Amino acid sequence: MTGDPDREEFTHDPVEHMQVRAGMSVGELIDEYGTAGIGAADLHEAVDIYAEMLAGDEVTNFVGLAGAMVPAGMRRIVTDLIREGHVDALVTTGANLTHDAIEAIGGHHHHGRAEGEGSLREHDEQLRDEGVDRIYNVYLPQEHFTAFEHHLRDEVFPELTGSVSIQTFTDALGRANARVNETNDIEAEAGIAAAAAANDVPVYCPSIQDSVLGLQAWMHSQVTDFTLDALADMTGLNDLAHESDRQGALVVGGGVPKNFVLQSMLVTPHSYDYAVQLTMDPEHTGGLSGATLDEARSWGKLEKAARNATVLGDATITLPLLVAGALDRLDR
Amino acid sequence: MTGDPDREEFTHDPVEHMQVRAGMSVGELIDEYGTAGIGAADLHEAVDIYAEMLAGDEVTNFVGLAGAMVPAGMRRIVTDLIREGHVDALVTTGANLTHDAIEAIGGHHHHGRAEGEGSLREHDEQLRDEGVDRIYNVYLPQEHFTAFEHHLRDEVFPELTGSVSIQTFTDALGRANARVNETNDIEAEAGIAAAAAANDVPVYCPSIQDSVLGLQAWMHSQVTDFTLDALADMTGLNDLAHESDRQGALVVGGGVPKNFVLQSMLVTPHSYDYAVQLTMDPEHTGGLSGATLDEARSWGKLEKAARNATVLGDATITLPLLVAGALDRLDR
Amino acid sequence: MTGDPDREEFTHDPVEHMQVRAGMSVGELIDEYGTAGIGAADLHEAVDIYAEMLAGDEVTNFVGLAGAMVPAGMRRIVTDLIREGHVDALVTTGANLTHDAIEAIGGHHHHGRAEGEGSLREHDEQLRDEGVDRIYNVYLPQEHFTAFEHHLRDEVFPELTGSVSIQTFTDALGRANARVNETNDIEAEAGIAAAAAANDVPVYCPSIQDSVLGLQAWMHSQVTDFTLDALADMTGLNDLAHESDRQGALVVGGGVPKNFVLQSMLVTPHSYDYAVQLTMDPEHTGGLSGATLDEARSWGKLEKAARNATVLGDATITLPLLVAGALDRLDR
Amino acid sequence: MTGDPDREEFTHDPVEHMQVRAGMSVGELIDEYGTAGIGAADLHEAVDIYAEMLAGDEVTNFVGLAGAMVPAGMRRIVTDLIREGHVDALVTTGANLTHDAIEAIGGHHHHGRAEGEGSLREHDEQLRDEGVDRIYNVYLPQEHFTAFEHHLRDEVFPELTGSVSIQTFTDALGRANARVNETNDIEAEAGIAAAAAANDVPVYCPSIQDSVLGLQAWMHSQVTDFTLDALADMTGLNDLAHESDRQGALVVGGGVPKNFVLQSMLVTPHSYDYAVQLTMDPEHTGGLSGATLDEARSWGKLEKAARNATVLGDATITLPLLVAGALDRLDR
Repeated sequence: MTGDPDREEFTHDPVEHMQVRAGMSVGELIDEYGTAGIGAADLHEAVDIYAEMLAGDEVTNFVGLAGAMVPAGMRRIVTDLIREGHVDALVTTGANLTHDAIEAIGGHHHHGRAEGEGSLREHDEQLRDEGVDRIYNVYLPQEHFTAFEHHLRDEVFPELTGSVSIQTFTDALGRANARVNETNDIEAEAGIAAAAAANDVPVYCPSIQDSVLGLQAWMHSQVTDFTLDALADMTGLNDLAHESDRQGALVVGGGVPKNFVLQSMLVTPHSYDYAVQLTMDPEHTGGLSGATLDEARSWGKLEKAARNATVLGDATITLPLLVAGALDRLDR
Repeated sequence: MTGDPDREEFTHDPVEHMQVRAGMSVGELIDEYGTAGIGAADLHEAVDIYAEMLAGDEVTNFVGLAGAMVPAGMRRIVTDLIREGHVDALVTTGANLTHDAIEAIGGHHHHGRAEGEGSLREHDEQLRDEGVDRIYNVYLPQEHFTAFEHHLRDEVFPELTGSVSIQTFTDALGRANARVNETNDIEAEAGIAAAAAANDVPVYCPSIQDSVLGLQAWMHSQVTDFTLDALADMTGLNDLAHESDRQGALVVGGGVPKNFVLQSMLVTPHSYDYAVQLTMDPEHTGGLSGATLDEARSWGKLEKAARNATVLGDATITLPLLVAGALDRLDR
Repeated sequence: MTGDPDREEFTHDPVEHMQVRAGMSVGELIDEYGTAGIGAADLHEAVDIYAEMLAGDEVTNFVGLAGAMVPAGMRRIVTDLIREGHVDALVTTGANLTHDAIEAIGGHHHHGRAEGEGSLREHDEQLRDEGVDRIYNVYLPQEHFTAFEHHLRDEVFPELTGSVSIQTFTDALGRANARVNETNDIEAEAGIAAAAAANDVPVYCPSIQDSVLGLQAWMHSQVTDFTLDALADMTGLNDLAHESDRQGALVVGGGVPKNFVLQSMLVTPHSYDYAVQLTMDPEHTGGLSGATLDEARSWGKLEKAARNATVLGDATITLPLLVAGALDRLDR
Repeated sequence: MTGDPDREEFTHDPVEHMQVRAGMSVGELIDEYGTAGIGAADLHEAVDIYAEMLAGDEVTNFVGLAGAMVPAGMRRIVTDLIREGHVDALVTTGANLTHDAIEAIGGHHHHGRAEGEGSLREHDEQLRDEGVDRIYNVYLPQEHFTAFEHHLRDEVFPELTGSVSIQTFTDALGRANARVNETNDIEAEAGIAAAAAANDVPVYCPSIQDSVLGLQAWMHSQVTDFTLDALADMTGLNDLAHESDRQGALVVGGGVPKNFVLQSMLVTPHSYDYAVQLTMDPEHTGGLSGATLDEARSWGKLEKAARNATVLGDATITLPLLVAGALDRLDR
């Protein structure tokens, strides 16, 4: 028993014990998380950093969005962040843009059932027969892809000729989504790409080929001179990284969006000053999706002095908490 | 494209998109989770079920509490649930009872740093030299174990002679914790075992040997006739299961507490009518900690008609959400 | 680009690239793992350490065995390790002892199907109706539990009266399992408890109540003076820890067996000199099951100089690799 | 106890118990896995399917390779599969191609240390100062990127003008890697891209921008008319899918390579007849990386009758086992 009870390092910052009650606000809950350990402490730190990233205009915010975030119901949160000026560049997947457009033109995803790997595969075979695609516990009737194909053919492709950047394509898609949306609240319901187009926020999609959106683009390229330039967007993203004063990264999920956001600093004199990631991938996979933000520091993607936090867990639970908590801080 | 757009199964329950805002309440956030998919939907369902479990006096609530929940700052949430009458039996670990008692007698855990498996082991060696135990990102100076030893010797063991049930021991511990607590808010700060003792809630600890509390009990048994009966508690737990009308299980973490709660139905004519589990273990480990509640149905631990939900994620994040959300429902 | 290409730390130990071929031995495969990174490197290190633990008689080997290792087909590997003198004390779960005995008396587990959490719960309901218990993708017809009950009543309980240690009970179980086994290869097929009893290896089961074995023991205690002493076994385990010269821990899965093995050093002047753990729990859960062995160093459970390795992955894949690889080393 | 012991479904396929011994072959180990449950059973099934995919010339094999497989030492296994005619199309990441080229031109990765998320970030800061990039537990001195830049400038870019397909670029890279390699065993050491180029195996890299290789391509595009066409490769991949008789997918890791392989069937009348995936992502993330192959069935990416297996675990451990096991089967 050699401990020195007076050593400040081990005695100055006690874990307190969270209290919860009926009627408490999300802001209060986040404050309570700050008193606790393990992941709760990480979530509190992430809110603290994200609020600092969003306060004022000083920080240029890069957002990476991977995973089935639109099918899972996170579309409006991202749309609102864009509309409120909290996103300066968005890197996402072709899948999220596909599902965002399907909702913009009136389609819907539906609550369904998840099936385990070893489970009754008959269930997925039955869905196949009935023309329903499954995304974990979300269903999407396949006829929506037909409507999406018509939307691209009628509203998006006519605007585009020759070799264009992917961002030019996502911008045209966003404007078309807004144009055809028929809800009462077009501004909110037209979705992510529409909000980005309306607010001059570039949407980058470096692996666009890997999606139904990419397959449709390829089919269109087979019968016209249209194609997509894989490299052109890097100029815009790198310029933004170069010209900004302070840089922040919000990374939801891993994959290409995560690294594409982080690597944008490699060809600038800057590194990220702030970074928050929400992921379900632990670091021991050795993959980029689960890699720690400290590892990114060794590459020079993050400043040595950067504030950063990683929250391990389902982003459909943690993203709403993070955003509600940070908005609450801004409002205080 | 063979889908029938009119098939109700695939069109009646659209995924809506969560909205968050500054100042929203946790209750509102939980409602929003209910519109989304993947884990958010599971969390919403869990709140719905837990609120039904807590409403009225009809359901007898069994709680399993594993993991480092006390060092991580969840002590007050469990204490308050007990004080509000929401726990009829608690199954937990010797570690949680040890750390609960350390806080009751004035000790504190402290925010520290986590170290990765492959990381600078020098850091843990240094902690060793300085007499500080690490629990992920929480530190505990070892001298608190000396104080705990004195507490047991002076306040708890004198009450116990011969072979007693483990629950008798935890009850004596709880009363001693309350007796010596010197805070202004003894009722709240004396902690889990104290609240349970004050409210006649039995605390079961089937693997008590596997903890510092168990080591101390063993050392005391070496010099007196004191010992603990491993089987005696099963009578009380099984009687409670037998005599209750409707049964609900809240399982936080896996391990022994999870199965000990679930198996209590195997020797009764009942099975659980409700079950909610918060776990970080996925089912594909094949272990009991990650096993689905459907699997428990095959064993007859859950009623075929039981409502159940599993939320995969860090319980330091999800337990406060679950409890705050359920209390909010009760209050509406 | 500030790197110093001559810095030895970064240039002396190149990752080579694994080669595999038809007909290669497991020993050769393990050697190849040693050239690679991420988890392969950890597995190679684990084999290296485990081989050193098994070589000669110098190291006293404590084995913790959690998880559904018997239903999953790992029973013979553990049995053979015991028979070959590679286990000095075994800490396991009541479930593993229950399923070990079921196989000893002629029962079998069967390959079945896993079901996802959100999956067709009708499948588990059907299993319930048909009297089949599911353990992930393994099935066990419930009538085997009736046979097990008879076995305990006829062969085990008659040997035991009054309050006995849990190890006394597992020893009687092991001898009974050997006695009734009717296979041609009784020594191998009678299983883990039988091999332990035959080789004077103590089997500890600190959470025995948490199993069908524990439920049966409790039912027997209701009608006789039989009961189990929860603390008695700690004397034997701690004495073994105290008296041994060098200590090694093999920890398969986490849970109570892991910590009970590790904490046995807390009341001795020793700490483990070697430790290998196979687990699916990452450290960020904050729980003991996923806690790193470095964390155990802060508590004094491991020597500061101890060699240790953690392999993250399914123990049904990694345990056979580890054991085959270590035996191969001993044989070279 | 309602089980019918004669029901064949529950009694015909007993779990046997694995045996391991010194000197056993990997082929024998795989056979043993087949007797066990949980993940061992999945690995055995995967070997069985993969051996069937590789036997004869009937099956066209698409391989997706994500994750840090080259830094982790899996480069030679993939190279050899290509050279032996077991790969008909490879989809991988820019990172794997970057690191493959670095080794081809004489660079090496080195065994280093992993650091936990919450760990001493000073360590990564120090690596930054010393010019060393970290990939989990693998180090790469940054000067290798300078050599890689020169390699592209001197050997690869001069061959390419105007807008070319990504596959044209990876082919030129592979030929250049072979040309400059100075080892005694050029054919093996020149690596993945070189082996693919020499064997007319197309290498697709749909998210090439997301890598140092992509950054270099972009920088070259800034000063010449060179650029990469994002869509052109889909023609070749989809034609291969269209023209083949039977299709098999081996998916290592998730990410873009996984889905790009799987979605190639969406614009053909075919679906995969065989699929094996090695992943660390569980399905409950809701993301594509962890999505089950049954889910892919609902989309029509897999045939309803397709044989498929998923092995959850570290691919640096499971890929060598899978390939060695399958090659052994072919050799029997």
